[in-house]
Amino acid sequence: MHETAAIHELDRDTAVTPDGDGRYTAELSAGWRAGGAVNGGYLLAVVGQALRAELPTKPDPVAVSAHYLSAGVPGPATVSVDVRRDGGSVATAAVDVTQEGGARLTALATCADLSQFAARSTEVRLTASEPVLPPPEECVRSADGPSEIRAFVPMVERLDLRFDPAHAGWAMSEPGMTGVISAWFRFADGREADALSLLMVCDALPPVTFDLGMPGWAPTLELTVHVRARPAPGWLKVRQETRNLAGGLFEEDCEIWDSAGRLVAQSRQLAMVPRPIGG
Amino acid sequence: MHETAAIHELDRDTAVTPDGDGRYTAELSAGWRAGGAVNGGYLLAVVGQALRAELPTKPDPVAVSAHYLSAGVPGPATVSVDVRRDGGSVATAAVDVTQEGGARLTALATCADLSQFAARSTEVRLTASEPVLPPPEECVRSADGPSEIRAFVPMVERLDLRFDPAHAGWAMSEPGMTGVISAWFRFADGREADALSLLMVCDALPPVTFDLGMPGWAPTLELTVHVRARPAPGWLKVRQETRNLAGGLFEEDCEIWDSAGRLVAQSRQLAMVPRPIGG
Repeated sequence: MHETAAIHELDRDTAVTPDGDGRYTAELSAGWRAGGAVNGGYLLAVVGQALRAELPTKPDPVAVSAHYLSAGVPGPATVSVDVRRDGGSVATAAVDVTQEGGARLTALATCADLSQFAARSTEVRLTASEPVLPPPEECVRSADGPSEIRAFVPMVERLDLRFDPAHAGWAMSEPGMTGVISAWFRFADGREADALSLLMVCDALPPVTFDLGMPGWAPTLELTVHVRARPAPGWLKVRQETRNLAGGLFEEDCEIWDSAGRLVAQSRQLAMVPRPIGG
Repeated sequence: MHETAAIHELDRDTAVTPDGDGRYTAELSAGWRAGGAVNGGYLLAVVGQALRAELPTKPDPVAVSAHYLSAGVPGPATVSVDVRRDGGSVATAAVDVTQEGGARLTALATCADLSQFAARSTEVRLTASEPVLPPPEECVRSADGPSEIRAFVPMVERLDLRFDPAHAGWAMSEPGMTGVISAWFRFADGREADALSLLMVCDALPPVTFDLGMPGWAPTLELTVHVRARPAPGWLKVRQETRNLAGGLFEEDCEIWDSAGRLVAQSRQLAMVPRPIGG
């Protein structure tokens, strides 16, 4: 535990300032770039901050669906939140992120207070299985990645990823060809994960196409996250998988498990198959 | 093949009339009710018709994310389509369905021409596996269901469902407790499935909670469908599964496979665990 309330990188870089009428100003940070664009999950966390400001009694982004319109870039952005329903246990809002260069993403979010919501039912039926990973110290550290990769993808410096060696062959140009990437996750600066940060974590690993021998940027068309519980402190386990790459598109499913063994978030995105490098 | 171009039920009941400025009028049909409300997948097919009218060169609803605001009821509805981007290979639009009683759903849709889109890449990597079902004539026919169920859920009359007996015990109050329901699907009136109709098919089976001994209505908060290919003629296979029921909510994944053995659509919804009947 920190004695002082240090401002962590994610909170500093996703902060929003109200402009009234549901409009917020944000400053997208170059520190969360992957290549020239800011990471799509980071952009969702900015959306999450605006939602939390607009709907303070429903702080958990239970279901967020984002359709990406163009690549976000470092610099000022406007986040507009239009609450469509706020009654009972959930609220739904439409959110748009725009920059001077154009619209970046449009999203719909259904928010709630997960702690109140869970009182509806105590049933648990889980057939999803927690990823089995070697201990973090036996995994492949993102901090040990090639310096040219870390320079190209500055967001990696914000994260402490420990990749399962069974699915990290792509780091040595020997992809496992299974369509799976899994890793331990924590923030490099010691910030604990919360419900909001899961919006970023679900898009923090490299595209699962890396493991299929298709390196390169895989533009996301659509990404939906379900945040199902507030994570316990400590390492998260993140597992990404594609089950259906065809027709120039692939689906990528992500599961996030917390240190208490709970499946705290599930996401699915539809992305474009990377064009061959040099192609 | 039909000699005459008969108007099939789904097309008749999802037809939209343009009012200008992206607004369309629809008449929600009592024939697609489940209880007092019209089926959420049927409502998505109405959305699909308005999208197709507004974006004729991008006729396939590749990724549609709907957040449900209140139950749609038989009668007039307005469908408003606001195109947010239309350039290159995809277009994205926001769609709202409203009735006199209020807003029913708000959705985001990314549309394309799937036949053109597939030219980007011929790679196919599929780890999803096609459901194995007994032949349709050895399955449990929806048409043989109890008459009181068919009266309560009139949409069943529009469909020819053949449930896998391995996961149909709930029909005899002996749920399999696996969280899976799978079935053959075709339209009762002989309409062949197309990309648009998959928006309905992904929500056509009973909630997967039936198989967990939790009968009752499971209100959908959010539903996202990815339509990945135009289905071949003939029977579809539909498989629904939940992997994570907890905290009063459950995720339901649906896969739709066509007669050519292709995974033509994947959907995921987040729904509320049904309240116990009489509870």
